[in-house]
Amino acid sequence: MKVKSKVWLEKRDKLVFGEGKSRLLKAINQTGSINKASGKMGISFRHAWGYITAIEKRLGFKLIERTKGGKEGGGSRLTPAGRKLVGNFDQLASALNKFTDKKFKEIFGGQCRGIKNKQKQKRIR
Amino acid sequence: MKVKSKVWLEKRDKLVFGEGKSRLLKAINQTGSINKASGKMGISFRHAWGYITAIEKRLGFKLIERTKGGKEGGGSRLTPAGRKLVGNFDQLASALNKFTDKKFKEIFGGQCRGIKNKQKQKRIR
Repeated sequence: MKVKSKVWLEKRDKLVFGEGKSRLLKAINQTGSINKASGKMGISFRHAWGYITAIEKRLGFKLIERTKGGKEGGGSRLTPAGRKLVGNFDQLASALNKFTDKKFKEIFGGQCRGIKNKQKQKRIR
Repeated sequence: MKVKSKVWLEKRDKLVFGEGKSRLLKAINQTGSINKASGKMGISFRHAWGYITAIEKRLGFKLIERTKGGKEGGGSRLTPAGRKLVGNFDQLASALNKFTDKKFKEIFGGQCRGIKNKQKQKRIR
């Protein structure tokens, strides 16, 4: 038996940020392009763009900014606020994963076998 | 902004136990009846029964046993293994919730406003 956990952020009961969005933003920052990042994630540009604008709207600040010039003629990167959000979220998700694994071992450790019923029980209908 | 988290157990990459199942088992134990419990949860008996047998199959032990006699003519209750699973899972979920809230405040505390970008940024396309 394995334990799994998930963390996400909500605003007015609506999802604003989770693991999928964090991966998308990191891919945009790595590739410098929403187009390349969405390709990497296996989603369309339109889909990625919709995600970003929806989160920005809910958060009330921009996550992505256009970079100008250079050989490639500019691209996209995270705003300082976007970087901070991604960094904070990753820190939270990683802490949670570690805690979950530790706590699972503490509570369930060796009990996965132990909790099996020894006595024969009738199937109820 | 609010933080939310979720924990569940898997076996061979399949869900075996989570919050919904835990609530169902507790309701069966409280009401002494799968029928009453499923009604309380807003699901059909067939649905509840399907859940239980699927988890039991994946876990390899029984969670529910039939009780005999009494005024009501018997009913259903958790097996010792079922009680242990529910108890352990609740302990894990509750520890995780507390940890998530604490960690969120630690990491994001006061930064939800702070991460807003002050500078005006162009909307990119």
